[in-house]
Amino acid sequence: MRIALDAMGTDHAPKSEVAGAVAAVEQDPDLDILLVGDEALIGDRLDRLRTHERIAVVHTPDRITPEDSPVSALLRTPRSSIKVGLDLHRAGQADGFVSAGSTGAVMAASQLTLRSLAGVDRPTLGTPFPTARGTTFVVDSGANIDCKPQQLVQFARLGAIYMQDLAGIARPSVGLLNVGAESRKGTEAVQTANRLLAQSDLNFVGNVEGRDIMNHCCDVLVCDGFIGNILLKFYESLATFLEGRVRARLAEHSLEPTLDELFRGFDYAEYGGVPLLGVNGVSIVCHGASSAKAIKEAVGVAKRAVDSDMVSHMARDLAAGQVESG
Amino acid sequence: MRIALDAMGTDHAPKSEVAGAVAAVEQDPDLDILLVGDEALIGDRLDRLRTHERIAVVHTPDRITPEDSPVSALLRTPRSSIKVGLDLHRAGQADGFVSAGSTGAVMAASQLTLRSLAGVDRPTLGTPFPTARGTTFVVDSGANIDCKPQQLVQFARLGAIYMQDLAGIARPSVGLLNVGAESRKGTEAVQTANRLLAQSDLNFVGNVEGRDIMNHCCDVLVCDGFIGNILLKFYESLATFLEGRVRARLAEHSLEPTLDELFRGFDYAEYGGVPLLGVNGVSIVCHGASSAKAIKEAVGVAKRAVDSDMVSHMARDLAAGQVESG
Repeated sequence: MRIALDAMGTDHAPKSEVAGAVAAVEQDPDLDILLVGDEALIGDRLDRLRTHERIAVVHTPDRITPEDSPVSALLRTPRSSIKVGLDLHRAGQADGFVSAGSTGAVMAASQLTLRSLAGVDRPTLGTPFPTARGTTFVVDSGANIDCKPQQLVQFARLGAIYMQDLAGIARPSVGLLNVGAESRKGTEAVQTANRLLAQSDLNFVGNVEGRDIMNHCCDVLVCDGFIGNILLKFYESLATFLEGRVRARLAEHSLEPTLDELFRGFDYAEYGGVPLLGVNGVSIVCHGASSAKAIKEAVGVAKRAVDSDMVSHMARDLAAGQVESG
Repeated sequence: MRIALDAMGTDHAPKSEVAGAVAAVEQDPDLDILLVGDEALIGDRLDRLRTHERIAVVHTPDRITPEDSPVSALLRTPRSSIKVGLDLHRAGQADGFVSAGSTGAVMAASQLTLRSLAGVDRPTLGTPFPTARGTTFVVDSGANIDCKPQQLVQFARLGAIYMQDLAGIARPSVGLLNVGAESRKGTEAVQTANRLLAQSDLNFVGNVEGRDIMNHCCDVLVCDGFIGNILLKFYESLATFLEGRVRARLAEHSLEPTLDELFRGFDYAEYGGVPLLGVNGVSIVCHGASSAKAIKEAVGVAKRAVDSDMVSHMARDLAAGQVESG
């Protein structure tokens, strides 16, 4: 098992990437990592930690920054760490790819290099959402702003397999984010998606309202990327805000309990990367501010996706879904 | 100043309505209330509290429940407490109307009875959203699921006047909820709305991301009712969920600080009703589970809207806005 890791993605690259890679191979004896990026910078970091026989460096000096326009940067920089890492994956020299670089560039390069699976109009990003009673996987979490009903159904299908293969849930329940429980609620696109999901072989539990999300009413929550993006960013910031209020109040009362664990569930760094689903390969996208721990977790996500043969599973399911709906 | 209050709106009507009316007139010596609903039920409740010379009852036995389809219920029940209360307002016998009945029915009846202001395609509901540094007024918070860019601009205009007249903010800042700060982000409708808002005379501060909401980056946050509904319901439930976690943890540590105030800002009952904006009158919608305190607060909102001559202000501004954009 070998994962290609973009070493030039985070804001302070390659610090977190190198430390994350070392942590990942030390935790997992079956894992090799290819660090893709500037050899000198990576080597310097690796030396400071511990050079490891299961970490190799693939040199490329080029880097795409989050400020670059994704597509034009890919065309202008054909040897970027993102593109080189994905090329290694496509060529079979790596089983999966992880990057904390520009999300747009990783998405575009993944589609370009790995191609979409048959039956997928547009690949999608899904994000695990910690709720009161377990994780809900929100898909799409920002990749696709405008979505057709058929695409929402594809997101549901991809998300369900992700939760099956990576979270071990036999038959994940699927909910549709909406403004009411009744099937006739919401926009036309959402109403049609409700109908298509109800007709599908998925374990569809119906519409899910904003107030239900925290009750873990489904394993996979489907929405378009516009609302997914806003909801997730809001979630993070609200948790941070409330944490601040609680801490301030406890300080007033001279109480200092260890609240760290209490809010840990809301720290996205804990989750590592989010998977790009629907491409013919394993591509995991991390936040640009990822810590070494987040990178290590993301490598772990990539490894579990490879181990479970998630991509073949998706390809089979999408083919069956097409037969079913066609 | 006389406010018509639908006495048959809450789940346990007229209990909260009567108690809220008594509390409102006791707090405000310049206020009269017309309680609209079943005379026998209201009288019974009023007797148990304290009959008050500034509270009168307007009898109507008919009631629209949240289960009824709003429009057909209005046609079938022409003497419902909602319709009678709004008729009193239109006829000038009341200066404003407050109801905790079916939101859909109050909206439909308000449009039917009071009519929309010129320049308003569809009236909108706005909801105050407590943030770290003050209140942000989110508009539309669920009334209109699909919105054209022009409608979003109208929401901005109505929301800005609401915050000017009721919150005393001289020149409210207006933000547009979006997935990124750049003006070219988001759906086509949102991109167009961004352009129209930037060209308007409003104090437009640009796009606001989900993560910025809690930082109070604007006084008025514009979005369509689909995302507004989901966001607000999610907000309430997340606050409740986090409160539960904090309390549980503090109990573990045998700490029992008074956390009530800490989370009070997230209790919508504290805010009373949300205003229906864009109709030619004052119509305040409350939650079906409203307490007497929420009803009292909602009556206060109605009174402030009347006092500040909000509706004329909106009518003037919309006329000017039309001249400007036409």
